[in-house]
Amino acid sequence: MIFHNLKNLEKKELLPGIVGNLIHTDTMTIGYFNISKGAVLPAHSHIHEQVTSLLEGEFEMTVAGETQLLLAGSVATIPANAEHSGKALTDCKVIDVFNPVREDYK
Amino acid sequence: MIFHNLKNLEKKELLPGIVGNLIHTDTMTIGYFNISKGAVLPAHSHIHEQVTSLLEGEFEMTVAGETQLLLAGSVATIPANAEHSGKALTDCKVIDVFNPVREDYK
Repeated sequence: MIFHNLKNLEKKELLPGIVGNLIHTDTMTIGYFNISKGAVLPAHSHIHEQVTSLLEGEFEMTVAGETQLLLAGSVATIPANAEHSGKALTDCKVIDVFNPVREDYK
Repeated sequence: MIFHNLKNLEKKELLPGIVGNLIHTDTMTIGYFNISKGAVLPAHSHIHEQVTSLLEGEFEMTVAGETQLLLAGSVATIPANAEHSGKALTDCKVIDVFNPVREDYK
C-alpha cells in the first residue's frame, strides 16, 4: 500500500506515555509519536540509525553522553549503536525515522 | 554532529516553490520542506525509497499511476524506482525521508 492516513492506523504504546503510529517500508520504519509530559525513554541502543525530529514540545535528550533540550525544529541524528535516553518536559510530538526496519516494532 | 536546529541550516530551493532544509546521515536523507501553493513536482523516479509525510496543507500526489490527495496526517510510501509526481493545492509543510542518502542533494 502506497497511501496511508495516520488516523486509520492502530496506535501502539511503546513505553508508558509514548504512543503513536508506525509505518514500515522495505528499508525504514517511521514512527509518529505523542509523548506525554514526564514520560521517560530509558537509556538504550540499537543497530538502527535513528533521526528524531521534534515537531512540538520540549524533550531533553542524551545521545552518546551529550545532552540537549530539543524544541520544535530540533533534530537529533543518532548513529547506529549509540546509547540514547530522554525525558519529556512537556507533551511532545515527535517523528522518529529508523534504518533498517525496526523488526522488533512489528 | 548529533544535534541540529532547522533554523540554523541553509535553506535550499530544490524546485520552484519547494524550499527547505536537508539533513544527511550515514544511511538516510531527511528533507523538511515548505511547498508553495501551485508548486509542481514533475514526474520522476530514483533508486531511493522515499516516505512523504504531510504535516500541513493539501498536496495531490501520484505514485506509480495512483493519485491521492494528501492532507495533514497523510503518508505516502514510495518504493525505489517508482515514478511519482505532485502538485501543491495549498501551501504545504512536508517531511521527506530517503534511503539511501540523496547524494545528488548534497
